[in-house]
Amino acid sequence: VKELEIIRLIRCRFPAVAPLLRGIGDDAAVIDWPGGRPVVVSTDLLVEGTHFRPADAPRDLGWKALAVSVSDLAAMGCRATAGVLAVALRRGLPEDWVEELIAGAGELCGRTGLVLAGGDTTETSGPVTLCSTVLGSPPAGVAPVGRDGAVPGQAVLVSGSLGGSLGGRHLRFPPRQEEALELVARTRPGAMIDLSDGLSSDARHLAAESGVRIRLHAGRIPVSAAAGEGDAGLRRALNDGEDFELLFTLDPGDAAEMERSGLAGTPVRIVGEVLEGSPGVTLVRPDGTEEPLLPGGYEHFRD
Amino acid sequence: VKELEIIRLIRCRFPAVAPLLRGIGDDAAVIDWPGGRPVVVSTDLLVEGTHFRPADAPRDLGWKALAVSVSDLAAMGCRATAGVLAVALRRGLPEDWVEELIAGAGELCGRTGLVLAGGDTTETSGPVTLCSTVLGSPPAGVAPVGRDGAVPGQAVLVSGSLGGSLGGRHLRFPPRQEEALELVARTRPGAMIDLSDGLSSDARHLAAESGVRIRLHAGRIPVSAAAGEGDAGLRRALNDGEDFELLFTLDPGDAAEMERSGLAGTPVRIVGEVLEGSPGVTLVRPDGTEEPLLPGGYEHFRD
Repeated sequence: VKELEIIRLIRCRFPAVAPLLRGIGDDAAVIDWPGGRPVVVSTDLLVEGTHFRPADAPRDLGWKALAVSVSDLAAMGCRATAGVLAVALRRGLPEDWVEELIAGAGELCGRTGLVLAGGDTTETSGPVTLCSTVLGSPPAGVAPVGRDGAVPGQAVLVSGSLGGSLGGRHLRFPPRQEEALELVARTRPGAMIDLSDGLSSDARHLAAESGVRIRLHAGRIPVSAAAGEGDAGLRRALNDGEDFELLFTLDPGDAAEMERSGLAGTPVRIVGEVLEGSPGVTLVRPDGTEEPLLPGGYEHFRD
Repeated sequence: VKELEIIRLIRCRFPAVAPLLRGIGDDAAVIDWPGGRPVVVSTDLLVEGTHFRPADAPRDLGWKALAVSVSDLAAMGCRATAGVLAVALRRGLPEDWVEELIAGAGELCGRTGLVLAGGDTTETSGPVTLCSTVLGSPPAGVAPVGRDGAVPGQAVLVSGSLGGSLGGRHLRFPPRQEEALELVARTRPGAMIDLSDGLSSDARHLAAESGVRIRLHAGRIPVSAAAGEGDAGLRRALNDGEDFELLFTLDPGDAAEMERSGLAGTPVRIVGEVLEGSPGVTLVRPDGTEEPLLPGGYEHFRD
């Protein structure tokens, strides 16, 4: 059973009925809340052996468990307010392992302003499993930004640099919350997603939800130093995943302005444009040839 | 590492600061929400081998995964609005297993009015692990009911009947949401908790949080038919856990009225009283002798 197939099944059975303003299929769900701002919520699992290694530092795992959900809310243009963390622990884990996990969660809270509201702990005979759920809301007067609002004629932008994250940065990445909040304070993005599966996969999600074609330019992709140089570096920037940068669309004038200014101290780069056409992603190579860009990103349940 | 020890560690590091109205240590956390009703949130893990058997019906597991969190919100006097469900699946699970899991979650939603807002799916090399998180709010003008408000002189009541749940009822139990909402609409409970660990353990949690002594009367405990008869039945009613009934305290006049009327069609029984004294629980046996009642309930990480 593939992950996308399961999500399709669940999405058919659970449409976005009231009080859901946005349901399954975006970075986070949006719930209309009586009298107040909408509640935006995202949940994420981290499983030992699938998302991290047994030898990874528990302090980094505590950070990452909450950071992935904060990143999901940032991709909606929202601030994370409170989180809960559920942990299934192998018998025999030393007490200081658990203390380090908690300390890492605390560091992420200190950095982002999140408060840890609760959790659950239990025992497992299998791999350590962490499940974070984070709640937040959009700034006053701002609607959450979905994956479905990209409009032909807009530019496609990305924050930071991509690729090579799995060498270490993926554990202790800074969620782009302040960047997203500055963005929605200054303008109105068409669509936004955070890069967890990889640019080639996540651009495709955004194109599919918006019903548009996205054209990326190889020469404009910001390749991180960790990804290496040349074609190998580009491939990693397109496919590695776990960058947790923001991919978003803006009207061309806004796009040029954001590229000049950056967001909250983080560089922002125009990497392509939104076109009419059958949903999908194409890549313009340095030699000017254009080809379909297939998802090479990480997908759970790959057969 | 014991579960209660971990919770103590986390509670020390994460006190209930703003916007938390209630943090770690209750059935659910309560978050002050700008302009609206508070957001009440609870998260729960179910791990194969710890909380259910590989042979258990996936439809029942889908129900239970959400029902345990709805029950937590009910224990705060709150209605569950929206939930998210994260599932770590073993490779090779058949597609219809997953479809049945989703169908069971759908049945719980249909019964309780919960909407499923989102989720996450991933692969695990270990036991199937389900993590549900449910959000809700108290009725207008009602404060969430904590574990900490029991007052000497109040009566202690329990809904339904106890014991023997692990024979099957624990999977497909009806969360006592309507009962809890009728209760808070009619009066103001001192304290409330849902019986997940077992009466002997959960009464102790309530006594500890409220700083009171609770005296239970063996002859008044409603023992379920599934628990069996006589002393063995009583022991199971006190210790089995997973009953997911409500334990709450009321002023004596209200208590007598609720015992006469029941709540939303569910019987309610006065089983004891709140006393001043060192926090803990005592049991008055049928012969009139009183003895300390130690937690015999299910605790994860028992050594």
